[in-house]
Amino acid sequence: MPDVPSLSGKRAKSVSNGKKELRLAIAGLGTVGAGVVSLLQENADLLAARAGRAIRIVAVSARDRKRDRGVKLEGFTWYDDPVSLATAPDIDVVLELIGGAEGAARTLVEASLAHGRDVVTANKALIAIHGAHLSHLAATHGAALLFEASVAGGIPAIKLVREGLAADQMEEIGGVLNGTCNYILTKMGDSGEDFSEILASAQKLGYAEADPSTDVDGWDAAHKLAILAGLAFGQPVSFSSIRVEGIRHVASYDHQFAREMGYRIKLLGMARRLDKSGAIEAWMRPCMVPRHAPIANVNGVFNAVRTQGRFSGPMLIEGRGAGAGPTASAVMADVMDLARGAALPVWGTAPQPARACAPISALSGAYYLRLLVRDKPGVMAGIASALRDEHVSMRAMSQHSFVTHDRDAPLSASAPEPVAPLAIITHQTQESAMKNVVARLSDMHEVLNDPVLMKIES
Amino acid sequence: MPDVPSLSGKRAKSVSNGKKELRLAIAGLGTVGAGVVSLLQENADLLAARAGRAIRIVAVSARDRKRDRGVKLEGFTWYDDPVSLATAPDIDVVLELIGGAEGAARTLVEASLAHGRDVVTANKALIAIHGAHLSHLAATHGAALLFEASVAGGIPAIKLVREGLAADQMEEIGGVLNGTCNYILTKMGDSGEDFSEILASAQKLGYAEADPSTDVDGWDAAHKLAILAGLAFGQPVSFSSIRVEGIRHVASYDHQFAREMGYRIKLLGMARRLDKSGAIEAWMRPCMVPRHAPIANVNGVFNAVRTQGRFSGPMLIEGRGAGAGPTASAVMADVMDLARGAALPVWGTAPQPARACAPISALSGAYYLRLLVRDKPGVMAGIASALRDEHVSMRAMSQHSFVTHDRDAPLSASAPEPVAPLAIITHQTQESAMKNVVARLSDMHEVLNDPVLMKIES
Repeated sequence: MPDVPSLSGKRAKSVSNGKKELRLAIAGLGTVGAGVVSLLQENADLLAARAGRAIRIVAVSARDRKRDRGVKLEGFTWYDDPVSLATAPDIDVVLELIGGAEGAARTLVEASLAHGRDVVTANKALIAIHGAHLSHLAATHGAALLFEASVAGGIPAIKLVREGLAADQMEEIGGVLNGTCNYILTKMGDSGEDFSEILASAQKLGYAEADPSTDVDGWDAAHKLAILAGLAFGQPVSFSSIRVEGIRHVASYDHQFAREMGYRIKLLGMARRLDKSGAIEAWMRPCMVPRHAPIANVNGVFNAVRTQGRFSGPMLIEGRGAGAGPTASAVMADVMDLARGAALPVWGTAPQPARACAPISALSGAYYLRLLVRDKPGVMAGIASALRDEHVSMRAMSQHSFVTHDRDAPLSASAPEPVAPLAIITHQTQESAMKNVVARLSDMHEVLNDPVLMKIES
Repeated sequence: MPDVPSLSGKRAKSVSNGKKELRLAIAGLGTVGAGVVSLLQENADLLAARAGRAIRIVAVSARDRKRDRGVKLEGFTWYDDPVSLATAPDIDVVLELIGGAEGAARTLVEASLAHGRDVVTANKALIAIHGAHLSHLAATHGAALLFEASVAGGIPAIKLVREGLAADQMEEIGGVLNGTCNYILTKMGDSGEDFSEILASAQKLGYAEADPSTDVDGWDAAHKLAILAGLAFGQPVSFSSIRVEGIRHVASYDHQFAREMGYRIKLLGMARRLDKSGAIEAWMRPCMVPRHAPIANVNGVFNAVRTQGRFSGPMLIEGRGAGAGPTASAVMADVMDLARGAALPVWGTAPQPARACAPISALSGAYYLRLLVRDKPGVMAGIASALRDEHVSMRAMSQHSFVTHDRDAPLSASAPEPVAPLAIITHQTQESAMKNVVARLSDMHEVLNDPVLMKIES
C-alpha cells in the first residue's frame, strides 16, 4: 500500500524531503490513455514540484501492443490482461481508462478496490450505474476511488461540488453535459439545417461517433448528471430512475420558434431538491432557455455545469467537455490529489445506498409544445379544449406559414393538404397534465406528428 | 494542535468513529463574519456528515460587543482583543475576517501561524501583499493558511487552480474580479449614462462603498489577480509590479464606440506566461472584449475567473463575487478542507520568494485609443503621423458627430469650438509604442483630453 500522507497543516514540512514516488498503472491506451502518458511526459517536473514527490507510470495494459499511439511506451511494464493490474506488484494507483459499465473496466475497478488499491477512472457509466456499490467497496477496503474526468472533461466539476461547495446546501445542479448534442443543437440553431444533416457533418469532423446513440439519445449526459446529483445531494442516485430524453426529435421548426420567442434549445440535465423532505427530481431533456441566460450561451462542443446553492447562489463553469488534453488534465488532477494525500470518500460522505428520483408526476414547470397541424377549420379549437380540460393555461402561441412538404415529421404518404408548424408556450403547470394533453393531441386527426414537448428553464 | 487526519484512501473508515470536533474562533463580525455564523447555524448537521466530525464556533472577537448583527452569539467566548485568539486555549482554527493588509488582521494571522495554529482568511490585500512571507511562516510552523474567500467571493477559484488544474501548465489566468466595477461598466453600457451618475446609484443600492476608490481604481481586483497569478504559476507575485488601472476615465463615448465596433468594456485582470523563461505579465485595466466572448457576458455584480491551460484548454467560472452568503460559503469550504485533512501549502508548492512581473515594455497587443478632438483641418493628419512614426498600424477608425458640450472630458472653460470623440483600433503592436503615441497626442493642440487607451482582449 502506498503511503499517501496529507500536506495539511503539520505535514507540509515533509513535502520535499524525499517522499516516495507514486507509481501508476494505466489500463486502456485510447485517446485519454495516450493523453495521460503525454501529459505526464511533458509536465513531470511541474507535477513533482506541486505534489512534493515524483509521479511515474510503471505499467500499462491495452488491447493491441503494436499500435502506434503517438507516445513512447518504453520503460513501462506491459500487461496483456488489464485486470492483472489490480494485484500486480509495485503499483500504487490504477488508472482505469477502458470505459463501459461492465466487462474488463468493472472487473478491474472492483478487483483493485478489493485489493485496497487506489483507483482513478474517467468512466462515467461505471460510476453512474455502480457508484453506490463501488463506494462501499472503496470504504470497506480503505481505497480511494476518484473520477473527476468522468464528468465534463477538463472541468473540475466534481471537486467544485464535493469540496468547493462542501459547506453549502445545494438546491440545484446540472448543465450542458454532452458536447456532441450541444454542437448539433448550436449548429441547427445557427444554420437552420436539420438534425440529420448536422449529425453527418459532426461525424465527419469527429464530434460525433459512427453510432451516435449514446450521445444523441442522452445517455452519456445522463450518466454525468447522475454523478453530479449524487455528489450535490450526498447520496448516489438510482440511475434507472432518471428520466432521459435525447435530441433526435428536435426539428429545425423548433429552433425557428425558439429564436422568435427569445429562447435557445439546449440538451439540459438538471437535478433539484424538491422540498424539505430531501426528495429530488432529475432529468435529461431538450429545454428552451432564455437567450440571455448564461447557459444559453454555452455553445459548440463546450460543456457547462451550473449550481445553485443556498449560500453560494448561482454558479456556472464552462470548458472543454471532452478530448485527450482536457480529460488527461482531469485524470491527473485526481492523481495529484492522491499524491498530495487529499482524496475524499466517493460521495463526499459515508457510503449510502442509491435512492430513486421523484416520479414524473412530481414535476412541474412551463412548457413548449410544438405540433404539425392540417389546415382545417376547428383545429385550434380542438387544441384549446385539450389544454383547458387539463387546466393548462397558454402564455403564447405562434403558427408558421403553411408548408406542403415537411422533412422533419413522419407524414403519411397520402396526406394531400398543406400542414403548418404550431408552437404553444404554457404558464406554470404539472408535467402530468402536459402528458395528458400530448396523449389527447396525438389522437387528433388534424395533428400529424408526435407532439414535441420541451421544458422551459431559466 | 488539532488532529486533522486525511480522509484519503486508508483513512476513510475512521470518518464517523467519533472524531474530535473542530473548534473555530472568528475575528471580525461584519457582513462576512455574521454570514459564517449564520451558515454554520443552518448547516451544522450537513457539515458534520460531510466532514465526519462536528464543526463548532467557540470564540469570537469584534469591535462592538453590543451591536445587533442578526445572529445569535450566545455560547461563544468573547475576546476584546482579536490577536489574543492566536494563543487562546481550545481553538483549532482562527478565521480572520477583519480585513486590511496591516493592523490587527496581519498581527493576528502572523501570531496564529507562529503559534502553529491553522488560519482561514477572506483577506485579499493581506495575501496579495504579504503572501510570500506568510507562506514561509505557515510552512515553518506547520500551520495551514487558507484563503478561498479572498478571490471572487463564493467561486472556488483557488481550489480550481491549485487542485482542479494541478496537473496542467497554466498559460493564462484572470477575469472579471470586481463586482462594483462590473456593475458600473454594465450599467454604463446598457444605459448610456456617465460614470458619476451610475456610481451614485450603485452607492445607493449598496453595490459601491461611500469611498469607492479601492474598487473603482482597480486595487481590490488587483489583489485578487495577484493571488490567482501566484497560484497559477506556483510562485507569489510582487504586488507592486502589477500594473493597475481603474475605470474612472471610461466615458459614455467609449461604450458607444464599443457597441458600434462589436465590443463590450470590462475591467479585466490578466496574468500570462510570456515565454519559456517563465516570465509573466500581469495587469488590471479596462479592456475591450468581443461582444460574444463568454467573459463579455459576465454582467452586473457577477465575477468570473478565466483560465487557459496547455491541456485543459479554456475554462470560465462565474458566480457571485461578494456578499455574506457566497463569501461565508467559501470561508467554510476552507474549514471543511481542514476538517477533512486536505489543506495544501499556500502557493501549491514549497514556499518561494515573490517575483516581479514583466515591465510594461514587454507587453503587446491590439489597442483602442479614444480622443476628443477639435474640428480643424489637419487633425487627422497629425494623429496619423504620430501612429506612423511609432510603426502602429490602424485597423479601424470611427469619429462621432461633433458635440459642443462634453460632460466627460476636462475641457478648458474657454474652448469655443465644437469637439468630437474619435476612436482608433490598432493592429497588433507594442504597448511601449502606444505610450509614445499617447504622449505625442497629449501634446497636440487639437487633442482636448488625455487620450484613453484600452487593450483589446479576446
